[in-house]
Amino acid sequence: MNGDNLKQYDHIIIGIDPGTNVMGYGILGIKGKTPALIAMGVLKLSRFDDHYMRLHRIYERVESLITQYLPDEMAIEAPFFGKNVQSMLKLGRAQGVAIAAALSRQVPITEYEPRKIKMAITGNGAASKEQVASMLQRILQFSKDELPDFLDATDALAAALCHHYERQKPAVARGPKSWKAFIASHPDRVK
Amino acid sequence: MNGDNLKQYDHIIIGIDPGTNVMGYGILGIKGKTPALIAMGVLKLSRFDDHYMRLHRIYERVESLITQYLPDEMAIEAPFFGKNVQSMLKLGRAQGVAIAAALSRQVPITEYEPRKIKMAITGNGAASKEQVASMLQRILQFSKDELPDFLDATDALAAALCHHYERQKPAVARGPKSWKAFIASHPDRVK
Repeated sequence: MNGDNLKQYDHIIIGIDPGTNVMGYGILGIKGKTPALIAMGVLKLSRFDDHYMRLHRIYERVESLITQYLPDEMAIEAPFFGKNVQSMLKLGRAQGVAIAAALSRQVPITEYEPRKIKMAITGNGAASKEQVASMLQRILQFSKDELPDFLDATDALAAALCHHYERQKPAVARGPKSWKAFIASHPDRVK
Repeated sequence: MNGDNLKQYDHIIIGIDPGTNVMGYGILGIKGKTPALIAMGVLKLSRFDDHYMRLHRIYERVESLITQYLPDEMAIEAPFFGKNVQSMLKLGRAQGVAIAAALSRQVPITEYEPRKIKMAITGNGAASKEQVASMLQRILQFSKDELPDFLDATDALAAALCHHYERQKPAVARGPKSWKAFIASHPDRVK
């Protein structure tokens, strides 16, 4: 999609689901209050053995998506919990390079827990990835043919749509956005 | 130090000790086989409440250090273990943005465990930060006045010097550099 077509939108949100095996992305355009799908896809990383090569690819792709779609904001799907410290360190690095690409282009970032995103899209915080994808299809009216092979792309798109819904809410109704606020409001979940 | 002075070195290594409260850095110049201190310092982040602001500062500082000192390589102090998944995710993000700054300038990265660095500098993998700083002072012959307030700077410089020592070794004698190799050689330490 070229620059002229992007001008029809009042606001563009890029959603990112960073991982060390697959990174999903989705670009959402907002006209008035109506969201529309601009693009979505995945970056497959498992063929690269080298950890730095994977991080480099994530950085490059996020940077090129920002150059191509000129998003006003970025929404990241960011789990606060993981199986073990190793996987969390790896995930943190993948998130870190995606965040760095946005920061270097002055794109503001908001992060959402997977549960919060699922709740916003389907009304059920424990919805499956398939349920999220199917709901996105209905809301954004794209055909099944447009669904990418991997559900990481729809997860990323869901993060962008979740952020769009949050932006519609009066500021007072929004949940905690920052890490600090999350920890403060969920003291029981800090292990 | 300006570009002309940097030309006297055959190889320049930047050492980084990324953290979410303080980031340390040290720049090492190598003439022949002799290492010399070019610069070291810390970036204090605790005054910023916002997590993204901290990450942004790390990214900017690493980028500007690379622009200023034109290092050939980067060495990162990277613990593989932490107290909990939250702190590891935060650390991973801090590492991720520092890594992204190097990747975006095509600076190759090597990471070292704190224990490995301490062993390389002092011969004792359990040495204190003060012992590491004092040994660096002797090896690189800088005065106590040049010691920065925070030991994170000497830790970063130690990572750079550790990498210099590793580069002197025949390839076969070097330990595992990559994550994969580390995990493979320490299966017992994967929790």
